[in-house]
Parts: sequence; C-alpha cells; structure tokens
Amino acid sequence: MADAPARGTLETFPNPNPARDYQIAIEAPEFTCVCPKTGHPDFATMQLTYVPDKLCLELKAYKLYIQAWRNVGIFHEAVTNRIAEDLIAALKPRYLKLVGAFHAHGGITTTVTVEHQAI
Amino acid sequence: MADAPARGTLETFPNPNPARDYQIAIEAPEFTCVCPKTGHPDFATMQLTYVPDKLCLELKAYKLYIQAWRNVGIFHEAVTNRIAEDLIAALKPRYLKLVGAFHAHGGITTTVTVEHQAI
Amino acid sequence: MADAPARGTLETFPNPNPARDYQIAIEAPEFTCVCPKTGHPDFATMQLTYVPDKLCLELKAYKLYIQAWRNVGIFHEAVTNRIAEDLIAALKPRYLKLVGAFHAHGGITTTVTVEHQAI
Amino acid sequence: MADAPARGTLETFPNPNPARDYQIAIEAPEFTCVCPKTGHPDFATMQLTYVPDKLCLELKAYKLYIQAWRNVGIFHEAVTNRIAEDLIAALKPRYLKLVGAFHAHGGITTTVTVEHQAI
Amino acid sequence: MADAPARGTLETFPNPNPARDYQIAIEAPEFTCVCPKTGHPDFATMQLTYVPDKLCLELKAYKLYIQAWRNVGIFHEAVTNRIAEDLIAALKPRYLKLVGAFHAHGGITTTVTVEHQAI
Amino acid sequence: MADAPARGTLETFPNPNPARDYQIAIEAPEFTCVCPKTGHPDFATMQLTYVPDKLCLELKAYKLYIQAWRNVGIFHEAVTNRIAEDLIAALKPRYLKLVGAFHAHGGITTTVTVEHQAI
Amino acid sequence: MADAPARGTLETFPNPNPARDYQIAIEAPEFTCVCPKTGHPDFATMQLTYVPDKLCLELKAYKLYIQAWRNVGIFHEAVTNRIAEDLIAALKPRYLKLVGAFHAHGGITTTVTVEHQAI
Amino acid sequence: MADAPARGTLETFPNPNPARDYQIAIEAPEFTCVCPKTGHPDFATMQLTYVPDKLCLELKAYKLYIQAWRNVGIFHEAVTNRIAEDLIAALKPRYLKLVGAFHAHGGITTTVTVEHQAI
Amino acid sequence: MADAPARGTLETFPNPNPARDYQIAIEAPEFTCVCPKTGHPDFATMQLTYVPDKLCLELKAYKLYIQAWRNVGIFHEAVTNRIAEDLIAALKPRYLKLVGAFHAHGGITTTVTVEHQAI
Amino acid sequence: MADAPARGTLETFPNPNPARDYQIAIEAPEFTCVCPKTGHPDFATMQLTYVPDKLCLELKAYKLYIQAWRNVGIFHEAVTNRIAEDLIAALKPRYLKLVGAFHAHGGITTTVTVEHQAI
Repeated sequence: MADAPARGTLETFPNPNPARDYQIAIEAPEFTCVCPKTGHPDFATMQLTYVPDKLCLELKAYKLYIQAWRNVGIFHEAVTNRIAEDLIAALKPRYLKLVGAFHAHGGITTTVTVEHQAI
Repeated sequence: MADAPARGTLETFPNPNPARDYQIAIEAPEFTCVCPKTGHPDFATMQLTYVPDKLCLELKAYKLYIQAWRNVGIFHEAVTNRIAEDLIAALKPRYLKLVGAFHAHGGITTTVTVEHQAI
Repeated sequence: MADAPARGTLETFPNPNPARDYQIAIEAPEFTCVCPKTGHPDFATMQLTYVPDKLCLELKAYKLYIQAWRNVGIFHEAVTNRIAEDLIAALKPRYLKLVGAFHAHGGITTTVTVEHQAI
Repeated sequence: MADAPARGTLETFPNPNPARDYQIAIEAPEFTCVCPKTGHPDFATMQLTYVPDKLCLELKAYKLYIQAWRNVGIFHEAVTNRIAEDLIAALKPRYLKLVGAFHAHGGITTTVTVEHQAI
Repeated sequence: MADAPARGTLETFPNPNPARDYQIAIEAPEFTCVCPKTGHPDFATMQLTYVPDKLCLELKAYKLYIQAWRNVGIFHEAVTNRIAEDLIAALKPRYLKLVGAFHAHGGITTTVTVEHQAI
Repeated sequence: MADAPARGTLETFPNPNPARDYQIAIEAPEFTCVCPKTGHPDFATMQLTYVPDKLCLELKAYKLYIQAWRNVGIFHEAVTNRIAEDLIAALKPRYLKLVGAFHAHGGITTTVTVEHQAI
Repeated sequence: MADAPARGTLETFPNPNPARDYQIAIEAPEFTCVCPKTGHPDFATMQLTYVPDKLCLELKAYKLYIQAWRNVGIFHEAVTNRIAEDLIAALKPRYLKLVGAFHAHGGITTTVTVEHQAI
Repeated sequence: MADAPARGTLETFPNPNPARDYQIAIEAPEFTCVCPKTGHPDFATMQLTYVPDKLCLELKAYKLYIQAWRNVGIFHEAVTNRIAEDLIAALKPRYLKLVGAFHAHGGITTTVTVEHQAI
Repeated sequence: MADAPARGTLETFPNPNPARDYQIAIEAPEFTCVCPKTGHPDFATMQLTYVPDKLCLELKAYKLYIQAWRNVGIFHEAVTNRIAEDLIAALKPRYLKLVGAFHAHGGITTTVTVEHQAI
Repeated sequence: MADAPARGTLETFPNPNPARDYQIAIEAPEFTCVCPKTGHPDFATMQLTYVPDKLCLELKAYKLYIQAWRNVGIFHEAVTNRIAEDLIAALKPRYLKLVGAFHAHGGITTTVTVEHQAI
C-alpha cells in the first residue's frame, strides 16, 4: 500500500474576482482508495464546493492529488476528513464543503459530508 | 419468530475528527422483518444520517444488526423507533435521523422518520 | 352515486414512542372518486404526512376508508379538505399535511395541499 | 392575430374551507401564443399555485381562458405578468405564484416567475 | 483566438411590470469557449436568473453575445465572473445569479455560481 | 357489483386511409375494476395497438366503455381477454394487441398481453 | 378554422450522398391543430424518419408547413396520414415513417404510425 | 436454515381463453433467500413470463411459495433453475421465462435467465 | 469560416484481436460546426460504432479531428456523411455506423444515421 | 505497474442444470486499470453474459480477478479482448458476451463488445 499524498501537491491560482462571494463546485467521480482492513478497493465521488477568498484550486494538480489516493489504505470517514483539511489548508476558503459519496459495500452505502465556514 | 437483536450487537470506533461537526449517511436498502399480525414479510430501506460526537458506527456490525431483524415480528412505527433508540444509545451522537422507507402493502406505502438532537 | 364514508371508519392505535416527535408518511396512489358535474371518474394520489401525538393511524382501516370514496361525487378541493379534517379529528396529531395530487383532466393537472399545526 | 382574452372570462366558485390556509396548484402544459416580432408560435407550461381566500378558480373556464391566448401576439415576460394580474384580480388570493416555463427558442429556454402576497 | 465580446453587444428593453418583483430565468446550454492553456474547447450551460428593475434582457442579442465567446481563450472561473459582471452592468437588476455548468474534463466537472444582490 | 359493459357500446368510424397498413396506439391509464374474490379495487393501464382495416375505434365511446368496467368483479386474465375479444369483434382489425398492465398487489405485479393477427 | 397547408409548401434539396442508403430523423415536438368536433386544440410530436433517394427535406420550409396546421380542424388519424402522404409525394423517399404522438385527452393518449417502403 | 418449499404448494386455475396464445407476466420484487456459504441474505426480483396452455398460475399461492424461500440456503443459479422447473411442472405452459435479478454483492450484480419452449 | 479537416488527420493502430469480430463504440458528445446559411453554431453528439478489420481508430487523433470541424460551415446531412466516409476510408472496417444527433433548432431536432457493411 | 492477472485465478463450479440452455449475466461496475501511455487511471463497467455448458463462473474469484487489473497498464480494446479470452478458456461456454463500457476521457466515451458462440 502507498502513503497518502502530501498536502503540498495541491496547487492554487489567484481568485479572478475576490471582490465578490461566489461558489465553485468540482465533482471528481473517479476517486478510489483501499480498505485498510480487507484490502478491497473502495470507490467514491468526491464533491467539492467552496467560496474562494484569495486563492482558487488548480484543476490539473487536484486531479493528480485525487489519483494519488489510489493505493492508500484508509477508511471512508478518515479520508474524507483528511482531504477536506488538506483543501482548507491550501485554499483558506471563505466556505468549503466536501461530500465523499462511496459506492455500496455489502449492500450498504456510506456518504460523509464535511463543512467548513471561515470565521 | 425471532427476538429483536440486542442493543449490544452495535459496535463503534473513535471519531477520527471530533473537532469538527460533520455528517455520516448510511443507507441499508435490504432491511426486512415480519408483520406480527399477518406473518407476511415487510421490506424497507433504512436511511441513517448522524453527526458523530466521540464515536462512529462500525459498518460490519451494523450490517449484522440490520440482518438480525429478518425473522422478528414488529410493526413499521415500532421497529423504526426501536432502531433509532438503539443507535442513539450506542453512538450518543450530536444529531441523528433514521428514515424507515417501507415498500408498498395493499397499494399503500409508509415511511417513518425519527430525528434526534443532542441538547 | 354513494355517500361519503363516515369519519368513524378511521381507526387508530396508541403511539409506540410518544416521548419523541417523529413523522409518519403514508402514500395511497389509488384514490378515485367521481366528478359531481360530469359523472366521469377522478384519480389521485393521497399523500399523508403527520407527527403523531397519542394516536397512530391504523393502515388497513385507512385503506378501506380510501376505497370507500370510489363512487362518491365530490370536487378535488372539497374531498381533499374533507379527508384532512377527518384525519385531524381521528388522530389529533401534532402536525398533519395532506396532498391530493389528481391526474390531468382536459390537459390540466390539479394538486390540493392542506396543512395543520396543533397549537 | 387575435386580441388578448378579457379578464372576465375567468370564473370562480366559493372556497369550500376558508377557515384554513391551504394551497391549490394547477398545471396547464398546453399554453401557446405567438411571437409578435417573428409570428412564430411560442409554447409554455403555465404553473399556477395559490392559497384561496373567499374564491377558488373554476377549472373549465380557466382552460378556455388559457386556450384563448392561442393566436395572440405577445412576449414571454408580458404574457406571464398579464395572466398573473388577471388571476390576482379574479381570485383576490391570500398568495399566488405563476410560472411560465417556455420551450427553447434558438437553443435558449426562458422561464418567468411572478409571485404575489396579499398584505 | 478571438477577443471577448464587447459589453455593449448586450441589449435591453423596458420591464413591462416594474411595480412587482418577479424573476426571469434564461438557460443557454450551448456555450463554448477555448481553454487558454491547452487550446481544447470547453462546453457549458449558462443558467441566468434575475429580477429586473427598469430593464429586461433582449434574448436575440444575448444569444449572439453567448455565441461570440466561441473562439475566446479564457478559464471557467474568469468567464463566468466576466459574463455576470457584463449582465449586471447592462441590466442593473434587483437580483442576479449566473451558473456556469461546464462539461467534465479529465473526469472532473466544474460549476461556477456568481450571485448579485442590489443594495 | 355491476355487469360487464355490452360489446355494442364500442363505436367505430371509417378508416381514412385503408390503402395503407398503419398503426394506431391508444393508452388508457385509468382502468379500474374489482377483484371478485376480495372486493378490493384493481387498477391497470390498458395499452391498445391495432392496424385498422375498414374501421377505426371512436375514442369517446371507448373511454366510456373503459369507465363502464369500474364496478365489475372480474380477474386480470379474464378482463384483458374479454376486452381484446370485444375490440376484435368491433374493429375486425388487420392486427391488434392489448396489454393490461395491472398495479402491484401484495407486492406482485401482473401484466397480461393478448395479440391477434387477421389471416 | 383554416385550410390545410398546400403540399407545395414543402421544399427539398438534392441528397448529398445518394450512393448510400442512410437515414434522417426529424422530430417536431410543437405540432398543434384543432379538434373538428369540439374546437379544442390538439398537441402532438411529429417524428419523421426517412431514407432519402434523390431529395432531402428542407428544414425551414418543413417547420413552416408544420406551423401551418395550427388552426386547421382535423382528426388524429387523418392528419398523420395526410402529412405522411404529403412527405412521400414531395420526397419520393426509399423509406419513410411518420409517428404522430398526441398528448392525452380525457386521460387517453393516441399515437398514429404510418410507414412507407418504396418498391 | 429451512427446506425448499414443496412443488405442490403452487396452485393453478383453468385458462379462461385457451383458444388464443397470450402472455402473462408476473413480477415478484421481494424474493429473498440465504447464501449457503456465508449465511448472508440474498435479495432478488423474480420476473416470470409465460404463455398458458390449460392452466394459469394462482397469484396468492405463488406469493406464499415465493415467501417460503426466505430462510432456505441456496445459490443464485440453483434457485432460479429450481423455481423455473417447479413452474414448468405445475403449469405445463406453451412458453415460460424466469429471470432472477439479484441485488449487488461485493459490487457485482448477477441475473439468471431460464427459458422454456414446449415442443 | 475554416476548411474541413483533412482525412489524413485520422490515425489508426493495429487491431489487437483480428481473429474475432468485435465491436467498438465511441461517443463524442461535443461536436460543433457552423450553419453555412445563417452562421449560427450547430451542436451534435457523434456516435460511432464499428467492427475493426486490420485497424482500430486512435482516440486522441479522432478527438482532434472532431474538434477541427469547429469553424467549418456545413449542413447536418453533409457533415455526417463526410465524417462517415473519412472513417470508412481510414479504417476499412468490417462494419461501421455513424449517428449524428444534432441539438434542436427552431424547435426541430435532426438525427442522421449512416451505415456501412463491408462486402 | 503490475502484470496482468494469471488466467488460472478464475475459478468455476459445475453447472447445476446443464440439460437446459440458460443465461447468466454478471455486472462488475468497479473495473479499473491504467492507461499505458499517460499513466492515468481508466474506469469501466464490465458486463458479462454467458450460457454455461459444464461450468459456471465462481463469483468471489471473479471479483478478485477483476480487482487484479487495478495497476496493470493496458488499452481499452486489448483488456476487453483479453478478459473475454480468459473467460472463454475457463468456462468453455455455449455463448459469451463481454461489454467493457469505459468512462469518458477528454469528452469521448468508448465501449468495446466481444461476442463468442461455441460451434
């Protein structure tokens, strides 16, 4: 199994319209990691929504960051929280929500939703 | 007919990110029990949503707990409330909602929704 | 044409969890009555949602009550209000909503929504 | 091209349950008028929602009123506002919303929403 | 690559019902521009919603304005903000929202939402 | 319970284009009759497809014929075959298919398909 | 009521690839005419499919031809056959199918399908 | 675990129209049995289609027969073939098809289709 | 307006399994060209299906070939036939079908289907 | 990158009803491998349909075989053909079809279909 991707692999660019609050939603339907207990792969759609402050998320680096979880062993709740914290650290957004919608396992479907509001 | 599963069969693990309020949704579409009046089987999807405090729900034990209702004779309203109270006792969550969406019977569909907010 | 069913044909049973506010939704997609002006049949789905206080609605008697409207001549607005008032009288619920969603007639679709909040 | 239908062609009947606020939704998917600039036909669904006060809208007369726009030349924004004002004048409702959802023209779809709240 | 269309190409007409707050939604599903980095085309649906004050948006000129972005090189965030600012300048609306829903690229879908409230 | 409608209530008109084989499909989604064993109502969509020879089916009389089954006690298989034979007798069509798609009962859905080819 | 449009209003252009059998499908969802018995409007989608021989159908003239039925009084079966015969006369196609899918009337939906094969 | 239901529990009634070949389709979406290897429950929709000869399938007994598999341990391929052979023995139909569409297990969905043609 | 892309820009690679007839389907939903009469853009999904003989279609070059039509002025029927002939010339396939499904124009949708069978 | 899984990892069990031709369909929506040119992951649903002769496919081993492609670098056409040949070798089925439906890449979707008929 591989290590989790370093937070530094996320890249940003300056917000083109910081005077206005607006929302960016980015859906990555091809997230996959590995169950640390069984070794079976897990699949999810990662749905990110954020209101940028000074920085926007660079899409190509985000795509590689998402791909870098492919062989990492980690549970649903932990990985969704970890990715959310990485994004909050990189973007310092006015608002951020990350929904990790995992495919069914043993007939049971899990969705983890993390929300962040800058004070 | 069988007895209802013991509350103790639900298992938990420590919340990996207790500093933040976040939501976990777990959908179990293969719930089945038995009508205590007619003996006919009842089918439902159990949709659980909760905000963990110190504990998260262990999925494998939850799946076995859901399966353990298979031959128990109990009404729609009673079983949805009973499962909700079992989960509240086990998880002591900041928030919990359980929706029991039962299949149609005699052309009529019933959905029971129980909501809990920690004070 | 037949008479409207008596309010007394609705039956109840004691709420199994009166300590908690929870919601019960019951969808009856096979409601039919007769237009008092043209004699043509009308079809609707009756969508009931309520928060029980001391009493829950018994499903089998409700099904027969719904069937008893089959040959009654009554307009959309009147029948939805009448059924709502019958249910409020029988259940004395903390909250109740009844939506009568009628099929299209002459290319026009009507939906009547009655809502009740106990004081 | 024809003239707009007179407001007086709308008919009403007494509200059967004025003691309670309830909602009536009426969807007319076969509205058509004519573009005054190009002469091409326009098609829309007119979605009416209202809370009656003393009066309810008579469906058959409403259907004929909707049909009477068939050969009238008028723009999307104007006709939706005009029908809404006609309905408000006829019904004097506690609340009314009219949504005119027009089919695409030149690849572009327009929806006009007019809302009215009695004071 | 082409230059961005001039703001002046947007045209307006007087609001036919300025006494009332009402909403106009205009969906343009055939927006396309070019990625300034790769030269590959980008496709989006531009969903505009606004409450007119003195002016309404003329549809034919808006369609040509949308088409004029076809060979302009510009990023998702920038173009959605730029179109929103052009519309706000032309319409001086009481409220405006523009959603740029872009097609997936490399398996990742981006949606940009800009909202404006007149003070 | 009522008697089955007489075959003679079906009406026809001359085929406007008998030189060509063409198909007419008529869907009646509001069929209802009564279960002769339990007295409970049954609901179905009756989907008719036919190739006319000398005669076409008159829609208004067909609608009344369909409504006339409302209080007749008859099983799914019997009523679909009976209606098909009535239509074959009235239309003498080159081809006819009748599908009776009944709503679920006790969780089980039945569809009866009768097909006729003139020799 | 208006007269049926003249067959001559349909226009054609030379088939760009007559060496190959290929298919052209044209869907016109905004067909409307008038019921000759009741005067109420009828709405339909006209779905044309054909294999061109020497001629293809010019779209703009076809659109005007379709619009020209707007105030003509004619039944479902008759109008679909008439339009099919007009198209066969104008295009002399290798194959042609026309489906007139009419909206529901009195809860009953009619679809007329005319098929033509050149010998 | 329970034994498989006896073939004799299926009941029949005389075909009301044996002179004509016609089709009966019966969908039972609430089939459940148990995996003989893991003890976990399996869920499926059993879709039966047949052309009756002298006998039709009695629905109530079929429903009880389907329910009787609830606690039987048996694999997907075996149970679908066994039910098909039981139905062929009981009905001696002109044609029969049984599709067992099982829910996903470990992310993989299985559907077994058995077809029978009388010679 | 630009010239049509040269046929030579399509690239191929050797079929990895020429011993077996198998099918490859490639859907390109972002095709756009320009109407030579009005200058307005046209949008389509190009759905290619083929059975390779010695050669398979290289996807990246095909994507660039599809993009190269962006500013070419050409009609629906002509462009679909032209792309089909280019693909047939490049691939010499055992079978090929190309469906050009164009978006609605003036409320009318056109789909062109070209099919090729090697002798 | 990893090696392709050995053919021997597929397991079988004896067909429980070899006297009859019947069909088994198995859908694996979580197939993933790696593009050998770019290193980016590819995702697909593998849809297998077969008519067993003496042997059926064991599901658990098939699931592990599908998972074993996770880090293998291979193109769409090659991997679908390779899996089909592995299954044909292991099952010696009377009939087999494998559809590899890959997710969109650069806006283009590829589906590969391999079919096998025993002689």
